[in-house]
Amino acid sequence: MNQPIRIGILGYGNLGRGVECAIKQNPDMALAAVFTRRDPASLRILTPDVPVYPADDAAAHAAEIDVLILCGGSATDLPVQTPAMAQHFHLIDSFDTHARIPEHFANVDAAARASGHTALISCGWDPGMFSLNRVYASAILPSGQDFTFWGKGVSQGHSDAIRRIEGVVDARQYTIPVPAALDAARSGEAVTLTTRQKHTRECFVVAEEGADLERIEREIVTMPNYFADYDTTVHFISMEELKANHSGIPHGGFVIRTGKTGWNAENTHVIEYSLKLASNPEFTSSVLVSYARAVHRMAQRGQHGCKTVLDVAPADLSAREPEWLREHML
Amino acid sequence: MNQPIRIGILGYGNLGRGVECAIKQNPDMALAAVFTRRDPASLRILTPDVPVYPADDAAAHAAEIDVLILCGGSATDLPVQTPAMAQHFHLIDSFDTHARIPEHFANVDAAARASGHTALISCGWDPGMFSLNRVYASAILPSGQDFTFWGKGVSQGHSDAIRRIEGVVDARQYTIPVPAALDAARSGEAVTLTTRQKHTRECFVVAEEGADLERIEREIVTMPNYFADYDTTVHFISMEELKANHSGIPHGGFVIRTGKTGWNAENTHVIEYSLKLASNPEFTSSVLVSYARAVHRMAQRGQHGCKTVLDVAPADLSAREPEWLREHML
Repeated sequence: MNQPIRIGILGYGNLGRGVECAIKQNPDMALAAVFTRRDPASLRILTPDVPVYPADDAAAHAAEIDVLILCGGSATDLPVQTPAMAQHFHLIDSFDTHARIPEHFANVDAAARASGHTALISCGWDPGMFSLNRVYASAILPSGQDFTFWGKGVSQGHSDAIRRIEGVVDARQYTIPVPAALDAARSGEAVTLTTRQKHTRECFVVAEEGADLERIEREIVTMPNYFADYDTTVHFISMEELKANHSGIPHGGFVIRTGKTGWNAENTHVIEYSLKLASNPEFTSSVLVSYARAVHRMAQRGQHGCKTVLDVAPADLSAREPEWLREHML
Repeated sequence: MNQPIRIGILGYGNLGRGVECAIKQNPDMALAAVFTRRDPASLRILTPDVPVYPADDAAAHAAEIDVLILCGGSATDLPVQTPAMAQHFHLIDSFDTHARIPEHFANVDAAARASGHTALISCGWDPGMFSLNRVYASAILPSGQDFTFWGKGVSQGHSDAIRRIEGVVDARQYTIPVPAALDAARSGEAVTLTTRQKHTRECFVVAEEGADLERIEREIVTMPNYFADYDTTVHFISMEELKANHSGIPHGGFVIRTGKTGWNAENTHVIEYSLKLASNPEFTSSVLVSYARAVHRMAQRGQHGCKTVLDVAPADLSAREPEWLREHML
């Protein structure tokens, strides 16, 4: 076997720790360093004998890293970090603000091309595996209709929005696809589904003692953008119950395309891709690590600039040789 | 828009006609010619004003074709036709004898490299879309288990095997996944499923008048390789009923991978890809046509030799520009 691919992690939260766990499952990779904005001495990571460096010193360690995996947030971290790091590293991020992907792509592409690096952005499951399933299915069935459903799963953004309400101590929000809407999507009939028809939202809220529960519930269900367009259920529970039953971070969803073929569009087909994830960050990390392998290979071939999952051939994700894949998996 | 991609079809059966229908749905492509081993004058195709040539004259028309789609059978046609045609055309086939793929790949690769052509083999849904879902899922979750189920759908090979029994006029055989086995596969638990546990086989048979039905049924359910390892049900029906209720060619199936993540493999994930197809050949044709676009692009870039779906980036299947895909589908 060749030398393992040396992976660096920038940002050691749920996602960074998930990357560390995923590397353990891939013998062709090794964790080479973790970079953190916290005091490195305060950080205990899981892998023995791996150095932890200050994030600000990352560039000085570029020669020790084959691919850097950025594990920061999309709101403020990645828009700055990814273009900056692309000057020094082949890298990958999970930038997931869909509306800002073109802008992020342009910034990262300029930095990566100027310095001769390969940078893959917006990797994970949505954007990521869901995106490529949308592209595959719409290319195969050009005359058809796409549906994406999310859940059942915890939405961190919506949970945070509830926590900001006065009198709320903690909260967990589940996004749940409506079974009848899933059935309608799979029917192959032309169907228009409103936001309210596709998903419901269920909230588990721990309130301060003596808080006005009616006001909290009203503030949740009427909150614009987050809840007003959905049928939302609010349950007030104890902190003990929240910890016992709602401490996981499950997620998942469905990408469905229906389409017609035949000279007179007489035959209907359904393509469906679904995920049921016990840990959203650990699955995202696992996707990132498999694409880090592809980034390493593309970098070695001199395929520089910004890439997305849409630019990567499936074989490049696998630790197996092309011959083995053709013989056993094709 | 650029000039449409000029597609040639070699072999005008169910698959060839499906390709013709799919081209109609893709405005960046045009059917340029059909090549047949029958008398060209006897063939009526659906698209107006497209020439039909003898298969033996195909090479003489190479300059009129950007990508040739081979629509012959895997048993005897493609092992000969694909290497021969790869000397003259960029091409794509649906070779689906899994065990012989390495040999077919080597033959086609040699012919395509020697003549500077791009040839994609074993395209469709299995091998094809199912294959790449197996590769994606196993790369993302290296610590896990794979399952492929087929059906509910018509197996042509099994239907043909029944038709060869003395006293049988016609027959249709459905392969059906066992719901309990699907549930077990999705459970994430380590599970071993035997051939008998995974699928059942249901046969609809039209017998000659006065034929010994008990003998026919016994010959079916005990037939080695085809039925002996399965729980098989046989229904004797009239030709009218066969034509009324069993004239379609539906198929489909499921690719499921479960896997564990976390430092101690404590979290379970399920990735599932499924197809529900009203017409097996028309869906296969639609996959072929989308990959013909990729073959054309790879040929233009000088990426010669034999390829499979595992070597093609998703963006290359789409008629849309990369910028559009990033903005709307990522």
